[in-house]
Amino acid sequence: MKALVFHGPGTKSWEEVPDPQLVDATDAVVRIDATTICGTDLHILKGDVPAVTDGRILGHEGVGTVLAVGSAVRNIAVGDRVIIACISSCGVCTYCRSGNPSHCLADEGAPGIGWILGHLIDGTQAEMVRIPFADNSLYKLPAGVPDDAAVLLSDIFPTGFEMGVRYGRVKPGDTVAVVGAGPVGLAVMATAGLYGAAQVIAIDLDQNRLELARTVGATHSVVSGTDAWKQQVMDLTDGFGVDVAVEAVGIPATFQMCVDLVRPGGTVANVGVHGKPVQLDLQDLWIKNIAITMGLVNTDTLGMLLKLVAQRKLPAEAFVTHRFALSDVESAYETFGDAASTKAIKVLMTG
Amino acid sequence: MKALVFHGPGTKSWEEVPDPQLVDATDAVVRIDATTICGTDLHILKGDVPAVTDGRILGHEGVGTVLAVGSAVRNIAVGDRVIIACISSCGVCTYCRSGNPSHCLADEGAPGIGWILGHLIDGTQAEMVRIPFADNSLYKLPAGVPDDAAVLLSDIFPTGFEMGVRYGRVKPGDTVAVVGAGPVGLAVMATAGLYGAAQVIAIDLDQNRLELARTVGATHSVVSGTDAWKQQVMDLTDGFGVDVAVEAVGIPATFQMCVDLVRPGGTVANVGVHGKPVQLDLQDLWIKNIAITMGLVNTDTLGMLLKLVAQRKLPAEAFVTHRFALSDVESAYETFGDAASTKAIKVLMTG
Repeated sequence: MKALVFHGPGTKSWEEVPDPQLVDATDAVVRIDATTICGTDLHILKGDVPAVTDGRILGHEGVGTVLAVGSAVRNIAVGDRVIIACISSCGVCTYCRSGNPSHCLADEGAPGIGWILGHLIDGTQAEMVRIPFADNSLYKLPAGVPDDAAVLLSDIFPTGFEMGVRYGRVKPGDTVAVVGAGPVGLAVMATAGLYGAAQVIAIDLDQNRLELARTVGATHSVVSGTDAWKQQVMDLTDGFGVDVAVEAVGIPATFQMCVDLVRPGGTVANVGVHGKPVQLDLQDLWIKNIAITMGLVNTDTLGMLLKLVAQRKLPAEAFVTHRFALSDVESAYETFGDAASTKAIKVLMTG
Repeated sequence: MKALVFHGPGTKSWEEVPDPQLVDATDAVVRIDATTICGTDLHILKGDVPAVTDGRILGHEGVGTVLAVGSAVRNIAVGDRVIIACISSCGVCTYCRSGNPSHCLADEGAPGIGWILGHLIDGTQAEMVRIPFADNSLYKLPAGVPDDAAVLLSDIFPTGFEMGVRYGRVKPGDTVAVVGAGPVGLAVMATAGLYGAAQVIAIDLDQNRLELARTVGATHSVVSGTDAWKQQVMDLTDGFGVDVAVEAVGIPATFQMCVDLVRPGGTVANVGVHGKPVQLDLQDLWIKNIAITMGLVNTDTLGMLLKLVAQRKLPAEAFVTHRFALSDVESAYETFGDAASTKAIKVLMTG
């Protein structure tokens, strides 16, 4: 088959590789019908994720059709159309059984899985992919859900909802500020209403993204990088700050923005992937009655979110701005990597 | 009356001052029957709390008898024996009404109260004290609860329970590590069982405090400052860390100990009062699925904890190690300030 293979920082190619095979009795092999690119893939290409080694097929999001299943797979059958969760999990270890499958302890070459696709094992930017623990790591796709929407459920929507809305403890009536209107930030905005947020404030440098934010769930938008941004947010509350501030960028400055915005009793929910430490001003914050949360998506809400997408209650397909053939994945990377000028949010590649 | 008056860093004296008077209709004046010294008072004397100015009477914990009440006080009457909450709160502002009275917005010279006794208004290390918002800031003391136990409910037990156990989201079966076996850390250990903690691990440099910890609720103790401390804690779990790590010291090193101890899905509950920023290693922690909580006690559990103390379900009186006459408050400070050699936990001063 053909696949997008990583060959060290800055280098990748769409090339012929061996077809994936069933290895364990709990595996499935899935033909990729649609996949997409995540910001994390760009980090990998920059060399920020050294665990990804030469020869690895990239990608951890996808929708496909099951080609083969191992003898122990119970709920997934050949021919099923499925969403591939970005988290692979065994379902039986202590973390899986206590609600944290992102820290699954199963062994796929080394103990500890979770996010392994396109990371520690071959991923979804390929014509086919092997999926370990298929019963726990695949979700059957109901008829009528377009691939454009379904592929957003592999990672983006569960991450936004679980790490932003649920970890952020959003409750009815809350004002939620989301710093960063990229795909995951937009997913937070799109799902904050599920827990009754009254106001959802999108904060970003990019006016184009803020406009999209208003169409997927944000009630207000604020351009950051100005002197006035913080006051604009405060003016939307009673002056004491927001109930929940969601960090969806992954740099110290935006983390600090969230800490500065949150009111006593509120939560800073970190969703961004960080590459550096931050300074936490505990000398001021110890008294502030806040929680700061962080973590890797568990995808345990994928099935729930899928029901909402199937009923057209979530605007998942609005996130796809560009489409490519799977074989044209290198053009898709160019478009996604230059989002500032292409205005790409999610690029869809179909097989 | 006589009171302990702060006269700038390093200076205090037990001296004659005017008797407190009712000022607002919601006030009470209380005769102090028993009071104690908090670590925060030592910080004030070091000059760490510049809001405390020359002439301020110190102290925010106490048990007393009501001498006078304002015309709007409904639930407290002259002659009542009461516990003075360290948090003064109006009960009607947006923070009081949303469960965060420690951020009460009422005005006592400047907007925003909460912890004001011995801080922004005169405190409890005196023969008498004025208590604003008496209905919300005093709790009637049932007969049979000794002052030794009751005075621990002003601050120490609510702080340990609310900021350690509740903010820490302790749940049945959890392993809870408490770094720092001072009064508040001990109160966390004494109350963790209320939410079903299975193991409570006391961690401290001081063997004496660890012994006391075992008598008030800790199931295990670990001497910190050794190479082996972390492994000793890990050996008490399944190797993945504790469910809840409570910081009860207030320095960067102990905060980091808690971050290092907590398992995915767990919580670091900061209880310590910090004077410096800490480094938060978000580049490692963003993926760890943890919450970090912090805040000032609300004392909204004081009444609940009082019921448990009245039924002898909490070992509050075990915390009092030394007793003084109120007029001998300066000796009490010497004993408390030299806890390493006196082994003082809480010093009781009675009027």
